[in-house]
Amino acid sequence: MKKLINRPEDVVREALQGIEQAHADLVRVSFDPNYIVRADAPVQGKTALISGGGSGHEPMHGGFVGAGMLDAACPGEVFTSPTPDQMEAATKAVNGGAGVVHIVKNYTGDVMNFEMAAELCRSEGIEVEAVLVDDDVAVQDSLYTAGRRGVGTTVLLEKIGGAAAEEGRPLKEVADVCREVNANGRTMGMALTSCTVPAAGKPTFELGEDEMEIGIGIHGEPGRERMKLKTASEIVDLMATAVVDDIPFSAGDNVLAFVNGMGGTPLIELYVLYNELARFLKGRNITIARNLIGSYITSLEMAGFSITLLKMSDDFIRLWDAPVKTPGLRWGV
Amino acid sequence: MKKLINRPEDVVREALQGIEQAHADLVRVSFDPNYIVRADAPVQGKTALISGGGSGHEPMHGGFVGAGMLDAACPGEVFTSPTPDQMEAATKAVNGGAGVVHIVKNYTGDVMNFEMAAELCRSEGIEVEAVLVDDDVAVQDSLYTAGRRGVGTTVLLEKIGGAAAEEGRPLKEVADVCREVNANGRTMGMALTSCTVPAAGKPTFELGEDEMEIGIGIHGEPGRERMKLKTASEIVDLMATAVVDDIPFSAGDNVLAFVNGMGGTPLIELYVLYNELARFLKGRNITIARNLIGSYITSLEMAGFSITLLKMSDDFIRLWDAPVKTPGLRWGV
Repeated sequence: MKKLINRPEDVVREALQGIEQAHADLVRVSFDPNYIVRADAPVQGKTALISGGGSGHEPMHGGFVGAGMLDAACPGEVFTSPTPDQMEAATKAVNGGAGVVHIVKNYTGDVMNFEMAAELCRSEGIEVEAVLVDDDVAVQDSLYTAGRRGVGTTVLLEKIGGAAAEEGRPLKEVADVCREVNANGRTMGMALTSCTVPAAGKPTFELGEDEMEIGIGIHGEPGRERMKLKTASEIVDLMATAVVDDIPFSAGDNVLAFVNGMGGTPLIELYVLYNELARFLKGRNITIARNLIGSYITSLEMAGFSITLLKMSDDFIRLWDAPVKTPGLRWGV
Repeated sequence: MKKLINRPEDVVREALQGIEQAHADLVRVSFDPNYIVRADAPVQGKTALISGGGSGHEPMHGGFVGAGMLDAACPGEVFTSPTPDQMEAATKAVNGGAGVVHIVKNYTGDVMNFEMAAELCRSEGIEVEAVLVDDDVAVQDSLYTAGRRGVGTTVLLEKIGGAAAEEGRPLKEVADVCREVNANGRTMGMALTSCTVPAAGKPTFELGEDEMEIGIGIHGEPGRERMKLKTASEIVDLMATAVVDDIPFSAGDNVLAFVNGMGGTPLIELYVLYNELARFLKGRNITIARNLIGSYITSLEMAGFSITLLKMSDDFIRLWDAPVKTPGLRWGV
């Protein structure tokens, strides 16, 4: 296993220590239980947003904590759900009296643990609204999930929901904005290579030298189909068709087009893929109103990418453009 | 070769088409000869900065074109110098009457071609100042270089020099700021894996399953030493010692600490490495005044990282903090 780490069991804690030292102007880090909160938490009177999930998907979620996005993030061990006590402590740390939205990607462990944390918090008088993200069109059920997996739309939801909270919307409205993002976002991913979980020490799966896997999940869960490697143009056609036909997205729609690297994909390839996606969408008379290109929801060093499309209302565009100041996403401030 | 591309010979052009469509609010792209300019170029009366070099290092340089950083970038083919006609056309496109700084990484082809372009531009009445970047402490001479290679400090120089130009400093002052950054910045890199140039179709070099190479260049040029893989802590000690002892950096210095991924390195590992670097510098009583963590000067999908330290004056800190609005680096606006 080739990794720039010390002991596998220390990776998450040491990365959190790195984040703590690098971004003290934006966030604070708590250990045992582990969570990251905005430096000025709790913000009195503001609806708070927290998310969480296994580590290994950086910058999501810890890199999205800050003004205009998340109030806190709970990182589990690599590809492992965080525990209810992390979520409970984070919820208490960010509650400014206006309640807390839990953004939960649809994986069985995450869902169960966030539910337990929400119950604990409610019993102590904190209002909690849970929002489920299940945007992956690739498979109906998966290794870690009943129903669709939560993937790329999560990043967009955290930005747009975070902006809605920042401008003072109450708990239920913020939760509804988040649910609306999930309802209008769809994703599909693929991989050229596997990744290696530090504690496992060997690749999660194997792919032949000329093979790729279409529809893969962000933990290397099996996708739709393993096939011979194709050109960027053919791969985008395959994946974008599956995404567009799902809601469906239609001629005249405005979308945010998100081309996301899985961690080991060079940026130059993401721009080649974006060029193909722009061509594909033009052919369907779908307009790219906004875009995001880079590695924002990753699977350690996996080579591959995902396409997320989000149907954009005027409200979504305004919330997307609103200032954000986090380690992983920043503009307007 | 596993890459998300179409034909290898089309990668650079298609990536530029992707950039053109993604970032039309920030930049314009010219083809034949290829260059990227800020959308509002030329800015009358402002000193302009251009850089360039082989492609495959994205987001550098094209991703750093925009207000507060570069006025233009000239991308060559992958790991191949751009040609003088690209540099000449870009220089003319950005000259607002106040002259143009050429930021040149020290590789033989880049240096020669930028010199030819500068001569051509001067003969047409455009003032040009060339600034050489040669911050790599690993080796004295290299495969593509007489003298030290230009690496990580380039990113910091483009930001700080760009801010100096943006606030209205004249040509010679901006060039001197850039030279001062180069004089105060030092870098060392390492690799866990090779990368594959699309046109070559096979890895540039081979490393055993338990080997790493310390002091490697951004094109996979040989470094100081090939050795057995060590822990993050040991690797940082090795590299940071070489960097710190070079100028040298001393107790009481304020530095910008830049932990850069080579393209295939997960962000979680970069934070583990930053944590080790912070520990190392604390032991030397060197203060981290600013930091940058992410993949900004890359070698396609190479796994590895580099450490750059830049001694920060108050002027440098102010210029670093100034607003910047580019596809690859953005804050304050």
